[in-house]
Amino acid sequence: MSKNITIAGAGLVGSLWAVYLAQKNHNVTVYERRDDMRKNFKEGGRSINLALSDRGWKAIEKVGLADAIRKVAIPMYRRVMHDAAGNLSYQSYGKENQAIYSVSRGGLNVELMNLAEKYSNVNFQFNHKCLGVDLKNGAATFGAPDGVEKVVESDLLFGADGAFSAIRGTMMKTDRFNYSQEYIAHGYKELTIPAGPNGTHQLEKNALHIWPRGGYMLIALPNVDGSFTLTLFFPYEGEDSFATLDSDEKVVAFFERVFPDALALMPNFLEDWHNNPTSSLLIVRCYPWTANGKVALMGDASHAIVPFYGQGMNSGFEDCTVLNQLWEQYGDEQWPHIFHEFEKQRKPDADAIADLAMRNFVEMRDLTADPQFLLRKKIENRFADKYPELWLPLYSMVTFSHIRYSDAWNKGLLHDRIMQKVMDRPDIAEVWDSEEVEQAILEELKNYPELTQNV
Amino acid sequence: MSKNITIAGAGLVGSLWAVYLAQKNHNVTVYERRDDMRKNFKEGGRSINLALSDRGWKAIEKVGLADAIRKVAIPMYRRVMHDAAGNLSYQSYGKENQAIYSVSRGGLNVELMNLAEKYSNVNFQFNHKCLGVDLKNGAATFGAPDGVEKVVESDLLFGADGAFSAIRGTMMKTDRFNYSQEYIAHGYKELTIPAGPNGTHQLEKNALHIWPRGGYMLIALPNVDGSFTLTLFFPYEGEDSFATLDSDEKVVAFFERVFPDALALMPNFLEDWHNNPTSSLLIVRCYPWTANGKVALMGDASHAIVPFYGQGMNSGFEDCTVLNQLWEQYGDEQWPHIFHEFEKQRKPDADAIADLAMRNFVEMRDLTADPQFLLRKKIENRFADKYPELWLPLYSMVTFSHIRYSDAWNKGLLHDRIMQKVMDRPDIAEVWDSEEVEQAILEELKNYPELTQNV
Repeated sequence: MSKNITIAGAGLVGSLWAVYLAQKNHNVTVYERRDDMRKNFKEGGRSINLALSDRGWKAIEKVGLADAIRKVAIPMYRRVMHDAAGNLSYQSYGKENQAIYSVSRGGLNVELMNLAEKYSNVNFQFNHKCLGVDLKNGAATFGAPDGVEKVVESDLLFGADGAFSAIRGTMMKTDRFNYSQEYIAHGYKELTIPAGPNGTHQLEKNALHIWPRGGYMLIALPNVDGSFTLTLFFPYEGEDSFATLDSDEKVVAFFERVFPDALALMPNFLEDWHNNPTSSLLIVRCYPWTANGKVALMGDASHAIVPFYGQGMNSGFEDCTVLNQLWEQYGDEQWPHIFHEFEKQRKPDADAIADLAMRNFVEMRDLTADPQFLLRKKIENRFADKYPELWLPLYSMVTFSHIRYSDAWNKGLLHDRIMQKVMDRPDIAEVWDSEEVEQAILEELKNYPELTQNV
Repeated sequence: MSKNITIAGAGLVGSLWAVYLAQKNHNVTVYERRDDMRKNFKEGGRSINLALSDRGWKAIEKVGLADAIRKVAIPMYRRVMHDAAGNLSYQSYGKENQAIYSVSRGGLNVELMNLAEKYSNVNFQFNHKCLGVDLKNGAATFGAPDGVEKVVESDLLFGADGAFSAIRGTMMKTDRFNYSQEYIAHGYKELTIPAGPNGTHQLEKNALHIWPRGGYMLIALPNVDGSFTLTLFFPYEGEDSFATLDSDEKVVAFFERVFPDALALMPNFLEDWHNNPTSSLLIVRCYPWTANGKVALMGDASHAIVPFYGQGMNSGFEDCTVLNQLWEQYGDEQWPHIFHEFEKQRKPDADAIADLAMRNFVEMRDLTADPQFLLRKKIENRFADKYPELWLPLYSMVTFSHIRYSDAWNKGLLHDRIMQKVMDRPDIAEVWDSEEVEQAILEELKNYPELTQNV
């Protein structure tokens, strides 16, 4: 029997989940606080480019959207690191042909909404702000654009309303609801390298560019129009920080010293610097994720993370995959049970990717400039190529597999232990690609049988 | 020049702080959500008895209230542990004559309100719920009992409105405000041992009684009327838990098996069990604690902790001490600076006591039943008595000193390290009070000069 289902939030996760529900013949209404982004659509200045990877692809493939998105996504096969002298170094993300894909957040959101609206049983209501929820009955109150408050009762209510979720705001006031919001010490600002002549890309197109500088970094992702979106991740306070770069002269002098090759490609640098806001970076954790078998949080509403592993959207989309699997397993009349299984199963994975994303920030901004780290990655990749059944690098587990994030994290910590021993050899730089090192890793692996089962 | 100051919350901290402000000739209005507790005052069923210790005494001494409270406070000189067979063991809290004091939360609150109201420049407004705050101007909106919303502008606004602070609720929505609320796995329920004939105490009066049972515990604090207030700290879920004690038979059988000596003294046991709610235990952390040099959080509003170190009220009262010291240091026109110093200085101490309180839960419910632990404490106390300039036990630093909580915590961890070595001696049970052990501790202390400076 078809249910009446409400989704709060027409963002990436809410729009995708509407399609999943529609395909199972439920009646879905999506309430969105903002106006329809498809009116006068243009890319905003605040959105970090998204890197779509295997978990995200799987979720959109299931609803038949993968082919359309593939046409506008740019594969990035490797990291290109830029040092202060403009020298480049390289690090592959995975095996040949494995890539993460640069997509426009807005563009993808528009595609998802268009797809959802093709279903006659899906309805979008824009400019409706969620004002509160009756968690017991799953009834949400929305403020309509005409000032009227509508109480919307439904069989199920999904809160896909983002890191500042109003649905979660109501759950937060219930007894024994655990919650944390943690802002990191860094903020970010977007900049642009425009397209070159005839829409050409002015840096290597199929790569994610990093200017690693220890405590901070600049990154660049390619866009289809030939431009790159750059993001500076930079401390709010301290010696080199947004606080100390308090004049045009200082900003320009800083970029000339630290990012000269990037600055040379940004004719509108100061304009971007002033027009684009400095935005904060937030980690949200909470538990439980569901209430009374009626209400469930998804995506950023229950687990907002920092963007450094490119897994924010991917993990939100994987929520749809997991919820859908449980649904198919338990059937349409078992929602209270499905909700409880969902939160129980998914919470450790959300915590793991939150930690992994912070760890990857250190890797990107600092370690990618470290020859020892790059050597370690070369040894790991060489071994993984030769013994794919024994070793899947952590980055690949997160990005190119569907292994649970929590399993990936645990295995990655064991990899660290093994590789630490390997890197401790004083002659490692000379013998890194030797039979001897390979044998040493094989020997170490015997101590960790959990690593070589079901890689 | 006298300022107009608003305090949200007429609880322990808000009422005490009103007195501090009044004594400096400021105009103070205290808004309280609930009705005046002095009308029809009786002890509620939900309030954990409070243990007033040195930090709390110092703060109330400063406003001249210590003598009055001392008359109704019951000193507790030691812990008395009850095993399942009714055997007792003992552990002193400190030196002879050092005690923590059992006081009634409600009674103390009433005294503080009465004292504050003696000042003509203090005004209480009850039944006023805080509906929101304009953080920039320090203006708070209160819903009055007649339904009218009052916007109250003032020079300074203090949020002493508890663990569910409305002032903090507004601050939480500002950018880069870190916040967490964490409920522990245990809840609590109050029970009562009534007075014996002629108002006598049926257990040793001047002691805090503990029934330590590993994963949970029962405690009892004496009241002036001869009764004891008992609190069961017990898991919500699991084998022995509130969830599994789901019938009168099971509850009584459980108490007969686990707390027989206590049960024998509770004629109204089942009545208490049903009438008193099962309540949750919450840890709140946040930062910053102040906004725009106008608004500051105090007490549970910024740092709610679990009750196991008896430091919830004491740390809230110490907020008054610290804020007052900074005020006297910087003067009346430096509030923005005072606020910033306050939060910067006090935050690590609040975090430390939050951690210490959870650690003390393990100590109380589990370690106090462990002969090795009790032996360790005996060795420590013996050494501390002999070398007071070299060793102040952690419990004493927290309870009987004004050492910053964060310093106490760091020193306590070093004490753990030293005592671990001492306890590792296979013959320690025989030689614990020997010259040799004493020398071993003295030797170890040389590795930690920070322990022997400014004890």
